[in-house]
Amino acid sequence: MTAPAALSRLSLNQRTTASWSLPEAVKGCVEAGLGAIGIWREQLAEVGLDEACRLVDESGLRVSSLCRGGFFTSADPAAAEAAEINNRDAINEAAALNAATLVLVPGGLPPGDRDLQAARDRAARAIERLVPYAHDHGVNLGIEPMNPIYAADRGVISTLAQALDIAERFDADNVGVVVDTFHLWWEPDIADQLQRAGERIVSYQICDWITPLPADTLLARGMMGDGHIDFPAFTRSVAQTGYPGDIEVEIFNADLWAAPPADVVATMAERYLELVYPYLD
Amino acid sequence: MTAPAALSRLSLNQRTTASWSLPEAVKGCVEAGLGAIGIWREQLAEVGLDEACRLVDESGLRVSSLCRGGFFTSADPAAAEAAEINNRDAINEAAALNAATLVLVPGGLPPGDRDLQAARDRAARAIERLVPYAHDHGVNLGIEPMNPIYAADRGVISTLAQALDIAERFDADNVGVVVDTFHLWWEPDIADQLQRAGERIVSYQICDWITPLPADTLLARGMMGDGHIDFPAFTRSVAQTGYPGDIEVEIFNADLWAAPPADVVATMAERYLELVYPYLD
Repeated sequence: MTAPAALSRLSLNQRTTASWSLPEAVKGCVEAGLGAIGIWREQLAEVGLDEACRLVDESGLRVSSLCRGGFFTSADPAAAEAAEINNRDAINEAAALNAATLVLVPGGLPPGDRDLQAARDRAARAIERLVPYAHDHGVNLGIEPMNPIYAADRGVISTLAQALDIAERFDADNVGVVVDTFHLWWEPDIADQLQRAGERIVSYQICDWITPLPADTLLARGMMGDGHIDFPAFTRSVAQTGYPGDIEVEIFNADLWAAPPADVVATMAERYLELVYPYLD
Repeated sequence: MTAPAALSRLSLNQRTTASWSLPEAVKGCVEAGLGAIGIWREQLAEVGLDEACRLVDESGLRVSSLCRGGFFTSADPAAAEAAEINNRDAINEAAALNAATLVLVPGGLPPGDRDLQAARDRAARAIERLVPYAHDHGVNLGIEPMNPIYAADRGVISTLAQALDIAERFDADNVGVVVDTFHLWWEPDIADQLQRAGERIVSYQICDWITPLPADTLLARGMMGDGHIDFPAFTRSVAQTGYPGDIEVEIFNADLWAAPPADVVATMAERYLELVYPYLD
């Protein structure tokens, strides 16, 4: 099946259709006419890397991201070493899948630790340690700044500006930034920071900020158009950088997970065509 | 009762003991030996301004803040006019109570409106319109930047840097900033921004960021020490500015509201003495 041109840059992040295995998600993307898929390592492990590469290759899909590396804020040397090994494995997988980026979620404060600056510094140093390995494998690391709602328990890097302060220490071919509307829509000078990011944007992920926030804040994301984010404006800012990559829909939401995955994909394609696609030029 | 010196700068914000009326809260503060109280307009209205002034005067307490003005992001002229009138009333009350500041909560996005920048601009213009009136009444307006978790529905001003960008357009005697640990603990350059704020800090409010976040995010605040915020470090940064004011405990939390208010005040005093007071010099 040939993808309609309008959906050729749309990507399904597997977390949007959490009940689908990787083979099911690949099939779902192809049937919906999408151009790419964002793969999660958990589902990848279920089928194995070789089979995953075969599936993806056969499908003709691009891999817009591999999710996810990171989680390297521990102050414990053994834990930091384990995280580094785990991240190297992730780099190997991203290389094999020819993923546009390996998404790095920084990780939160270690239990009982309240020194946020130190945790941020450890995250930056961990990225620095990974860069040579990623470079050798041709993988572009994508630092994902996360909404401050997750600063304590998931991602200590809180703004695009902060992510860029780290990324800019390295070549753009090695370290970029993941731009997710949910995480960054509120950032005061987001349009300027997107311009600053320029070619460092290695992933554009979209989902909405909905209120009232669902009880489990990890699952607080909404379908584009259901919340408060101005997707046309945000998308224009991303497009103005010349971003050539895929637009990946990543929605953690219990209601969506309970719906038939193909319906979710159909809805996200509709919303994309309405709220995002017209603003990509 | 004479306040012990160590508690002389501690203030109870009425929202921490939501079940107490204003007379009860004033009595509770005096009995606990606190030096100040942060008053809410809803409880103030129950007794009337004259009686409130009499109660406060008799108690010897300072009024560390009046909560709250603001909520002026509506794009509708009639609603904006109503908000301005309401804020003038709040200024009158703050003046009568000799409150250190009138806390301005900006307000969120109007329903269906996704233009965050325009809402922020309206908030700034609304503050500008209030300044002459506040000046004439000797009231210092305190802009409260709010955690991005509330950017859509409560406070469109998201960082101390952003609040200062607005405040600095005016004399420091007229417009300052409210520094609340819950809202600002994650801000990447918070220590620098606190230094920048300097004498513009008109209120230092404290409570903790707890995880997992309670289901109702409006009530997501925790008692100091129960969460992830480094109160010694944050307090040192505030103290370095020479901040001479009160330290106000403002905790919206359903569990605390269900507890006997005097017990809550006792706990907050203990935590203050442990986590905040030693770092004020």
